[in-house]
Amino acid sequence: MHKGYYSEYKVFLAVDCIIFGFDDEDLKVLLIRRDFEPEKGKWSLMGGFLKKEETLDDAASRVLFKLTGMHNIYMEQLYSFSEVDRDPVDRTISTSYYAIVNIEKHNKELIQNYNAKWFSLSKVPDLIFDHNIILKKAVRRLRRRTSINPIGFELLPEKFTMRQLQKLYEAILDKKLDKRNFINKINSMDILVKLKEKDMSSSTKGSFLYQFDQQKYDAKQEKNFYLKI
Amino acid sequence: MHKGYYSEYKVFLAVDCIIFGFDDEDLKVLLIRRDFEPEKGKWSLMGGFLKKEETLDDAASRVLFKLTGMHNIYMEQLYSFSEVDRDPVDRTISTSYYAIVNIEKHNKELIQNYNAKWFSLSKVPDLIFDHNIILKKAVRRLRRRTSINPIGFELLPEKFTMRQLQKLYEAILDKKLDKRNFINKINSMDILVKLKEKDMSSSTKGSFLYQFDQQKYDAKQEKNFYLKI
Repeated sequence: MHKGYYSEYKVFLAVDCIIFGFDDEDLKVLLIRRDFEPEKGKWSLMGGFLKKEETLDDAASRVLFKLTGMHNIYMEQLYSFSEVDRDPVDRTISTSYYAIVNIEKHNKELIQNYNAKWFSLSKVPDLIFDHNIILKKAVRRLRRRTSINPIGFELLPEKFTMRQLQKLYEAILDKKLDKRNFINKINSMDILVKLKEKDMSSSTKGSFLYQFDQQKYDAKQEKNFYLKI
Repeated sequence: MHKGYYSEYKVFLAVDCIIFGFDDEDLKVLLIRRDFEPEKGKWSLMGGFLKKEETLDDAASRVLFKLTGMHNIYMEQLYSFSEVDRDPVDRTISTSYYAIVNIEKHNKELIQNYNAKWFSLSKVPDLIFDHNIILKKAVRRLRRRTSINPIGFELLPEKFTMRQLQKLYEAILDKKLDKRNFINKINSMDILVKLKEKDMSSSTKGSFLYQFDQQKYDAKQEKNFYLKI
């Protein structure tokens, strides 16, 4: 036991998962309806308590799977929230995790079996505890990362048009982008392969299809930050 | 008390502070010598336990002040480390905080009264527990942020040369930068005011002195991320 002049003050540690989704329309977030007190009936992030013999990463994956059936989602740790009264029952610090997934690619039926639902970011209700604050921080982090790092690899079809990629960025950043500027910036990142195929569904002229160059994309994830200066 | 099928598993929460320093030479980190078991005598980050009625932010400031006499340092939360056996005494999750300060500006005499010492990053010894891992993550975060956001406002004299600013970036990023490239990038950030004065100490021709444009600098801190795409 830790001894000394520190009183033996232990706390509950919780994890809360913010799962963003993209489905070609707009940015959504997955919420579950809480079925126990306090604040029963309100919507909530997917959360649970840290157990013995597991790390926070493990806890986040376990809790997400238990509440939504989703698995193999790589989540990033976002921030630990420690306002003293954030949980009215007992002192609980919450470490939050977030990820963004392609809604279509994840088993919609499985999610229908749980108390979980996708909400457009613009239509998120009043959540339990400080979950609206946690969500807001996650949105900021996602937008910041998107501005800097290439994104999209898992969220788009294997072959996609430049228009689809732009729509994804616009959905996350919540703003319209200038098409020519966008194309220039994406091209300067040099992470796409332009295919000899066209998608003909949106116009008679058709739009070229692109693929991510996996090796270049992975290298960018690591090195990107060091290239600016 | 939290009830239900969650066993009542509570943990110790600690905070650990990584204080980087710049003194015109290289990047340093502040460490203290641990004077109690286990691992007594080894160097360590400044750490302590979360108390009742305080947030993690408060705990970090309190611990830093208690151990080094430093105060009014704005620290950013970095990451929560939760490997099960990271602390051999009892289950302890550590939430780390970091900041970078100008060594000269902080009362060196005060620090001499504590068991604290500045170490060049290249000369950091074997630290207690997982503190080398925590430090490594902090270094990565600092370098990543430096590549993206303007840095330097608090770390340089009020008026400085372009050469001094470049030395600061080189110290943090741990690499030599091309002078012309660097000047172009800094100018494109548009956060400096070129003064009509020169620093004559390094050459007979002298070097122009610059100041940060506070308003533009503060605005960049907020908006910078959104300007890339």
